[in-house]
Amino acid sequence: MTYIKPTLPKGTRDFSPEVMVKRNYIFDILKDVFNRYGYMPLETPSLENLSTLLGKYGDEGDRLIFKILNSGNYLSKTRGDDIKDINKFTSKISDKGLRYDLTVPFARYVVMNRNEINFPFKRYQMQPVWRADRPQKGRYREFYQCDIDVIGTKSLLNEAELIMIINDVFKRLNLDICIKINNRKILSGIATHIGYPEKLTEITIAIDKMEKIGLDNVIAELKENGIDDNAIELLLPIFDLSGSNKQKIEQLSLILADNQEGLLGIAEVKELFEYISYIDDVNFDCELDLTLARGLNYYTGTIIEVKAKDVNIGSICGGGRYDNLTSIFGMPDVSGVGISFGAERIFDVMSELDLFPKSNLDTTKVLFLNFGDNEVKYSLPLINNLRKSNINTELYPDNNKVRKQMDYANKRNIPYVVIIGEDEVKNNKASVKNMTTGEQNIVDKDDIINYIK
Amino acid sequence: MTYIKPTLPKGTRDFSPEVMVKRNYIFDILKDVFNRYGYMPLETPSLENLSTLLGKYGDEGDRLIFKILNSGNYLSKTRGDDIKDINKFTSKISDKGLRYDLTVPFARYVVMNRNEINFPFKRYQMQPVWRADRPQKGRYREFYQCDIDVIGTKSLLNEAELIMIINDVFKRLNLDICIKINNRKILSGIATHIGYPEKLTEITIAIDKMEKIGLDNVIAELKENGIDDNAIELLLPIFDLSGSNKQKIEQLSLILADNQEGLLGIAEVKELFEYISYIDDVNFDCELDLTLARGLNYYTGTIIEVKAKDVNIGSICGGGRYDNLTSIFGMPDVSGVGISFGAERIFDVMSELDLFPKSNLDTTKVLFLNFGDNEVKYSLPLINNLRKSNINTELYPDNNKVRKQMDYANKRNIPYVVIIGEDEVKNNKASVKNMTTGEQNIVDKDDIINYIK
Repeated sequence: MTYIKPTLPKGTRDFSPEVMVKRNYIFDILKDVFNRYGYMPLETPSLENLSTLLGKYGDEGDRLIFKILNSGNYLSKTRGDDIKDINKFTSKISDKGLRYDLTVPFARYVVMNRNEINFPFKRYQMQPVWRADRPQKGRYREFYQCDIDVIGTKSLLNEAELIMIINDVFKRLNLDICIKINNRKILSGIATHIGYPEKLTEITIAIDKMEKIGLDNVIAELKENGIDDNAIELLLPIFDLSGSNKQKIEQLSLILADNQEGLLGIAEVKELFEYISYIDDVNFDCELDLTLARGLNYYTGTIIEVKAKDVNIGSICGGGRYDNLTSIFGMPDVSGVGISFGAERIFDVMSELDLFPKSNLDTTKVLFLNFGDNEVKYSLPLINNLRKSNINTELYPDNNKVRKQMDYANKRNIPYVVIIGEDEVKNNKASVKNMTTGEQNIVDKDDIINYIK
Repeated sequence: MTYIKPTLPKGTRDFSPEVMVKRNYIFDILKDVFNRYGYMPLETPSLENLSTLLGKYGDEGDRLIFKILNSGNYLSKTRGDDIKDINKFTSKISDKGLRYDLTVPFARYVVMNRNEINFPFKRYQMQPVWRADRPQKGRYREFYQCDIDVIGTKSLLNEAELIMIINDVFKRLNLDICIKINNRKILSGIATHIGYPEKLTEITIAIDKMEKIGLDNVIAELKENGIDDNAIELLLPIFDLSGSNKQKIEQLSLILADNQEGLLGIAEVKELFEYISYIDDVNFDCELDLTLARGLNYYTGTIIEVKAKDVNIGSICGGGRYDNLTSIFGMPDVSGVGISFGAERIFDVMSELDLFPKSNLDTTKVLFLNFGDNEVKYSLPLINNLRKSNINTELYPDNNKVRKQMDYANKRNIPYVVIIGEDEVKNNKASVKNMTTGEQNIVDKDDIINYIK
């Protein structure tokens, strides 16, 4: 029998133990902070009905949803010439797809459970999603999303709380960040102010690219979209606003003085900044960025984006307020606000900046070498005591050559090796080797824990 | 626009926050114990190539694998009459499927990474799997498996360690268990002893059903499979073996005295029981059960199964030693041993016996009511202090009627509510209400933590 070397589907990854402990380090901090603020975990199935998914992500999204063949004789619903129309054919052989994001399943969950849910509903969700995208560096077909939302409350305290959560998470990850804030109502006010309220989408798509393509190109794109020179004249001073957030807000209030929606957005931003001033141990810069849009059609109020200060990698967290999330399933007027942590990007940033702790990861701390049956039986109660003291401990299972056993400890980066030979058994001792310093000492068998701690 | 009420694909579930905290309680204990013994997390993709999955689970398994439509114009590889042969057609429109278990992906991982892996390789894996089974009570199309294996070592210390892990897990879950142990080599010895070595599979399939269908029906099934009366006469005394495990082993040693494989199995069981005697704080009964087989063709040595003592629900954990796991991908002679915890069943048992802790789950401990802007600003630093002391704390985001806010606390089972009104702000106090006893007290604002603890 010949075997073909097995491979992985393109765009997918195995996560080795070395990578997993680092990923879990990030996930555990996220969960811990989310729980601390009273957000609760939710999980939805990987499979959703295509009727739930299709039409929610645009045409491009519909194409990128992984579709699952109906089970059994999936051709039974098709007729001879269905196959000539691939979309029709697909709809007859597949009625389920893989989750494309966590937002639509969350909306579905809220609508299906509206009578049981205790609003305001605070949930987080950390699960993989799948997209049949062309795989490339940093873009995968299966990747995790980490979303946290509160729904059923309009208070800006929720936005403030999300900023606190962002602060806590990145402080614990030891990552310096800059938080950018904007408000859809301000963007809307600006579009009205320059005389093109109906071109809000085009205008914000263009100015959202400011950082990427620069002012000249943004102006060119605006002109292409039919924005005239007068309007651009009105727009330019808004980009030029400078000074502190407070100063920017004051200047903007004058510019949008006649615009009710704009002023409402400004009031919201002011209130949010005031709440933010109540956060202590602040570990971020926070900036009003009037060019920030983030998929404008979705957000209706506050818009939030987080960038790492020391790595140029795009946003590592972002979100905002929406008033119409559940309306896609016929449940209108439920306001919420949420953010999504880009766990995969955060992992890349932490790796690049070498921010993963060396000793704090959940790995083995002590390896007992194996010198045969008698020594093992002497070791077992000692190992048990270490484990009871919450010290991750292994016993090498085979009585192999010492070099091979030490090699195992080295490759696994295990910091302490305990050697129990004939002498140690005879004298109720243990030899403990610190693998970092190379130092080796003989201690009483009951003193191993103290020695290691 | 009309909306269709969204639904879930059959056989799938949403896990509400109330359920998730209980599931996480189980998963966290499993992970914590696994880490304590030096097992490391591994994750493999949900998607695998069908070439990896097909042929590994039998014909029935092949049918139950969820297959994913190739993306883009998936019909481009088909020809006009391919559709007449559904299997051929399927192979042209689908080359990926959803993970069916965690064992085959583990074997694939080991084979693909054989040169990087540091053997013995101890890994655990807790991920969902998918099966296009007919959904029924307790059987889902998407469910979690929790596997723990060590591969690349033949030592029975590994089996003993898995028993220790089982002991630790169920002790922490507060669940009384019985562990059954057998050995494939003993089963093989028995088949030879009664004169039907070539019918090992049929014999063990029959006697594996002893508990379910009783002795008479087992004998009937054996006869149907062509086992003659003389052989059954030889078999009956083996089922009748009684007394302690030690006594059973002694008697079995006499019965299989001429059978080398059987004696080898007995020696392994004896050695394992001796290691088990070194476990302290034992929380289980351990029984040599000669009828235990568990998918015999897979295991080559020790077989392990765990049952809950107080609920009749089948096995909640099981596994054994295999010598040929990676040979399905052309890498022979790699011995390993592993067990799988049935997290879904454990959840059901814990629910039935009401074993989930009331206070230890990761939920909100304190809710601050919201009486308006001034009170909120007084509250924010207090809330921050509670969170810094690792107390999960929420602030009700809206200044709603008190009854509505209290109702939220009640429905969420939040044990403490802090009331900050005008008087509390004026006097630097806080009113703390114990929601369990109904007791309410006024404390200094800096004493909230002590009062609650």
